[in-house]
Amino acid sequence: MTMLNPHFTALNQAYIFPLIEKKLEELKSTSPEAQIINLGIGDVALPLAPSLAKAIGTAALEMATLEGLRGYASSNGYDFLRNAIHKHTFAHLRIDKEAIFISDGINSDVLNILDLFDLANEIGIPNPTYPAYLNSSILRGHHSIVELPCLEENQFTPLPPKKRCRLIYLCSPSNPTGVAMTRQHLERWVDYALEQEALILFDAAYEAFITSRDVPKSIFEIEGAKECAIEFHSFSKSAGFTGLRCGYTVLPHTLKVNLHGEKKSLLPFWERRQSIKSNGVAYPIQRAAEAVYSKEGHQETKAQVATYLAQGARLKKQLISLGLTCYGGTDSPYIWVKNPDKKSSWEFFESLLKNTHILSIPGCGFGSLGEGFIRLSTFTTPEKMTLALERLRLYT
Amino acid sequence: MTMLNPHFTALNQAYIFPLIEKKLEELKSTSPEAQIINLGIGDVALPLAPSLAKAIGTAALEMATLEGLRGYASSNGYDFLRNAIHKHTFAHLRIDKEAIFISDGINSDVLNILDLFDLANEIGIPNPTYPAYLNSSILRGHHSIVELPCLEENQFTPLPPKKRCRLIYLCSPSNPTGVAMTRQHLERWVDYALEQEALILFDAAYEAFITSRDVPKSIFEIEGAKECAIEFHSFSKSAGFTGLRCGYTVLPHTLKVNLHGEKKSLLPFWERRQSIKSNGVAYPIQRAAEAVYSKEGHQETKAQVATYLAQGARLKKQLISLGLTCYGGTDSPYIWVKNPDKKSSWEFFESLLKNTHILSIPGCGFGSLGEGFIRLSTFTTPEKMTLALERLRLYT
Repeated sequence: MTMLNPHFTALNQAYIFPLIEKKLEELKSTSPEAQIINLGIGDVALPLAPSLAKAIGTAALEMATLEGLRGYASSNGYDFLRNAIHKHTFAHLRIDKEAIFISDGINSDVLNILDLFDLANEIGIPNPTYPAYLNSSILRGHHSIVELPCLEENQFTPLPPKKRCRLIYLCSPSNPTGVAMTRQHLERWVDYALEQEALILFDAAYEAFITSRDVPKSIFEIEGAKECAIEFHSFSKSAGFTGLRCGYTVLPHTLKVNLHGEKKSLLPFWERRQSIKSNGVAYPIQRAAEAVYSKEGHQETKAQVATYLAQGARLKKQLISLGLTCYGGTDSPYIWVKNPDKKSSWEFFESLLKNTHILSIPGCGFGSLGEGFIRLSTFTTPEKMTLALERLRLYT
Repeated sequence: MTMLNPHFTALNQAYIFPLIEKKLEELKSTSPEAQIINLGIGDVALPLAPSLAKAIGTAALEMATLEGLRGYASSNGYDFLRNAIHKHTFAHLRIDKEAIFISDGINSDVLNILDLFDLANEIGIPNPTYPAYLNSSILRGHHSIVELPCLEENQFTPLPPKKRCRLIYLCSPSNPTGVAMTRQHLERWVDYALEQEALILFDAAYEAFITSRDVPKSIFEIEGAKECAIEFHSFSKSAGFTGLRCGYTVLPHTLKVNLHGEKKSLLPFWERRQSIKSNGVAYPIQRAAEAVYSKEGHQETKAQVATYLAQGARLKKQLISLGLTCYGGTDSPYIWVKNPDKKSSWEFFESLLKNTHILSIPGCGFGSLGEGFIRLSTFTTPEKMTLALERLRLYT
């Protein structure tokens, strides 16, 4: 009989979202009138920027003409989008346009990148972490995973381990803790990667939320990073693309890997992988992403991020005034809240849900070291945030 | 140093498309005035159906409102689309709606499905074949690949092999040969799969082109297939979606696999894989796919397929009148042309390109047993097809 991938059994079986759904169902049955405010999921809550919606409609009408028809796109992405990204974000860092690869979202790329590597490479993964890094590494059958602890003691920013890692997932500003890595911190990681001849898989999904001066917006601001880092970007949180699906990967031609003892440039292998497994991203979606760099698009999407950040500041202030210890929120849409009275993640989650009808995510859902925390997100509307703050004021 | 996936070295290095590009460049330098007609690539050539373009624009505007905003979609796809597909294509076959999974195109699904399986499963792959089946299996490191020869002697439809296969890729109507499997033929494969407790990975990308009465449009028309087949569908060729990216997979809950000696239902593992690795498909694109099932959308897309089929019939007739032996074209947009005078695929490709400025694909690009053939596609406009036929009339 056809055999299942045996690595499925190594996945964490207590998958968190069905459990959250169950708790919600329970609340709805005991308090059917409850108006739940979802500060759990990291999904955008403000309407799509008008100029982006317009770009989609225009592109679709264009495709309905003989002159404007577009079939298969290059699996690397359209030049108009690669050029726009390059000009606005990477030209000053002296990264080539050819290093930029468009995809249907950062989630695809941060996981698909593993296809390029031998299973024997040790993978460093933060704990707590965005769960897909770990699940995807397990499912692929990687032999060795090195835990990078993110604790209060290290301000949730792990230092390079003593053990060897040949691939390292870093996410800054971090999902779930909302804490961003400083320049100095990133320099230590780049030094480690250069010394170990390792590669950093740098998830910059939340860079649009960075406000601190000493936090780089790209790992390529650090000298030497072009020799040891792949950077992943998303339009999801920076431009409200969660329902549109577009992101990109920056993979400089200076990155090298070992193939049977020979040094090889990594870039052609990513191009080959994409040419086999990807047929590109929908043309109207790429036009919407391009519109993010137009004058209107830039203003509209910047204003959305500013709204989320301002809401985050209000939320964090309210939480602190309740005597709670909070991390993140300054350079991130996420606030990582320490549970009071040694409550477990699930106990605090339930207490908050029952007493304020605010939905959070238990920190243990992001890894064992997330226990004792919950994650709150600022992705909601101003009206709902005001309501959430009123309810929190009465929370004890 | 970080080690590359060693299976890259096992990929066929003589990748065909760069070679074709080179031949085109050569022609352009010797005959700069040449108007090349591309009958090579299987990409749509008619404008996007107006009702589909309209659906995209409407959905985008909807997302720009607070009420109509859509963030992350379910990785299984929106219910409105799963329902539409179910109602029109699978209800009469007694396949559940829950068996239908939306994706960003059939290419993703036919390759991603491999994530579910142990590398020890022997994979049967036709030769010639859609190259991604083979390349993706190689890249993942599958231990054993069984070649299923598609020859003139078996009308390019392989019979089950003597060797055991636990996974079998079948594509009907076939890319590249354009030949479709009859009911009787598919019954033999279903019998084999049930007997071997194997799974058939059935690529139905071209089912919209089927005109023969004895060719099933779905493998689920065959009794027993729900216990041994996964079917993959595309909107690319049936509704002009190559530049929009949408397809779907039909994975019935009755499919079983072996996990450490226990029989398990396969469906929850696909759901789990998708929940980790996919964030769904853009909302406006899913609305466009839904519009394929509207009255206008159905008429418009049917008319496109009819145009391509009529062009294929004219092309095949012309080729036959030149004394060429042709296969396919009846249930497919592809015609598989046998090379005259024992020419190699590349020789015939070059002769056709130089003398008629028509671009084909050398059959050897689809596998060693494609040698001696070229693939022509009917994906062009009526004007260009008329021009192609005029030029072919003079071809000797």
